Amino acid sequence: MTRASFTGEQIYRGDASICRGCWDQMHVPIPIRGALALPFRAFGITRSKMNPNICTICERSFRYVKKQRQVTVNATILFADIRGFTALSEQIEPVRLTEIVGLFQDHCAQAIWAHDGIVNKQMGDGLMAIFNFPIVRKDHASAAVTAAMEIQRHCAAALKSLNVDRALGVGIGIHSGEVEIGEFSSFRSDFTAIGGAVNLAARLESKADAGEIVMSGQTAAQASHLTSQAKTRALSLKGIEIPVLARVLSKT
Amino acid sequence: MTRASFTGEQIYRGDASICRGCWDQMHVPIPIRGALALPFRAFGITRSKMNPNICTICERSFRYVKKQRQVTVNATILFADIRGFTALSEQIEPVRLTEIVGLFQDHCAQAIWAHDGIVNKQMGDGLMAIFNFPIVRKDHASAAVTAAMEIQRHCAAALKSLNVDRALGVGIGIHSGEVEIGEFSSFRSDFTAIGGAVNLAARLESKADAGEIVMSGQTAAQASHLTSQAKTRALSLKGIEIPVLARVLSKT
Repeated sequence: MTRASFTGEQIYRGDASICRGCWDQMHVPIPIRGALALPFRAFGITRSKMNPNICTICERSFRYVKKQRQVTVNATILFADIRGFTALSEQIEPVRLTEIVGLFQDHCAQAIWAHDGIVNKQMGDGLMAIFNFPIVRKDHASAAVTAAMEIQRHCAAALKSLNVDRALGVGIGIHSGEVEIGEFSSFRSDFTAIGGAVNLAARLESKADAGEIVMSGQTAAQASHLTSQAKTRALSLKGIEIPVLARVLSKT
Repeated sequence: MTRASFTGEQIYRGDASICRGCWDQMHVPIPIRGALALPFRAFGITRSKMNPNICTICERSFRYVKKQRQVTVNATILFADIRGFTALSEQIEPVRLTEIVGLFQDHCAQAIWAHDGIVNKQMGDGLMAIFNFPIVRKDHASAAVTAAMEIQRHCAAALKSLNVDRALGVGIGIHSGEVEIGEFSSFRSDFTAIGGAVNLAARLESKADAGEIVMSGQTAAQASHLTSQAKTRALSLKGIEIPVLARVLSKT
């Protein structure tokens, strides 16, 4: 499969020589690039699929890294998906559908990794990213908003280049707050985030039209230098009693 | 963490001695239990987290197994999540939240594995399962509906035992149809399913109240011996123009 819009452009592969997650969480240097990484690779310790600047110890050994089953972390959660995908999927051939999903996932990952986030979950035409764990970023809200703006810019160009008949676009929801991070089932070993803040980010995303970034007031306030142009929108969200005053960035 | 409701009950661990996915897809016997499995384990080939009766070759080497990037498969897709979780997550302590998610995920996996499905994606308080790939089951619709009924029965008992203040329950959506299965991003190696049929299953799930199994007409027709008691409900679903006549099984 060729991915036309990646011509001359490489997926962000990162450049850290030690795992930034293990360093930030434990102050332990785990080599992930160069000759020093070779013996680790022999023991199955490689770069994580969640972010190429962290290693599979962070990814799969949460309990070893944090010495507990779960931790409460102040983080920013980003959800993104392709708007119009359900309708589109009835109309175009499967190979094209795959191409669109591939482009979307790759462009999103590139933007998220460039700002120290991790792609924690991929779900078909959607994904969930976490900022501030395991790579610590004090400005995690700004990092997420910047990544979202890059996702919108790059995906708009890529989707346009595909010449799909209908208006496709990406919807993004972002919220910053306390989440629970840990391993939450007895048969999976990769960590994830749960809690009200995660669900709020997902609900905000469900309200984002193509091209829009819908964020909570908390995220907008922490990334105020990026969100001064954002419009305010009152949203009533499933499972949340009081309407939420969201801030929305859209294509100019 | 103790999980009270699992007392005297073990998570389904499967019992196949060779990988049922590799056998069904390639007719190649890959030992996953017993002494013959040991040399494979040394090469990192172990049982998959998606289903303990398949191996990590099926899970991570889709292109090797299928000799192509994607395949169209007639399958049944099941989505499940905890209803009322967003509201609940604002009210109870994080440790309890984790306990509920853990119980849910474990009970779901047990029921899905017992009927040859795989837990393809876990997303916090939700999951997506696939029936008929890589383990082939001609009666995949019936297998999914039976698994859904077991999920409802076991989760209802488990959630009740937790003595949570509010009425919690599980919502399930099921649809059977052609899906695209393959690896859809250049940086992840586990396969997933995409396409209109996947999105329809997700939309059906979003309409399921606590305790309900909402399935498409296609699934109900293929599992007619299980669904004669199901009520018909017209649903207008996001991204789908014509109202869908769904069939609903609920607690008696």
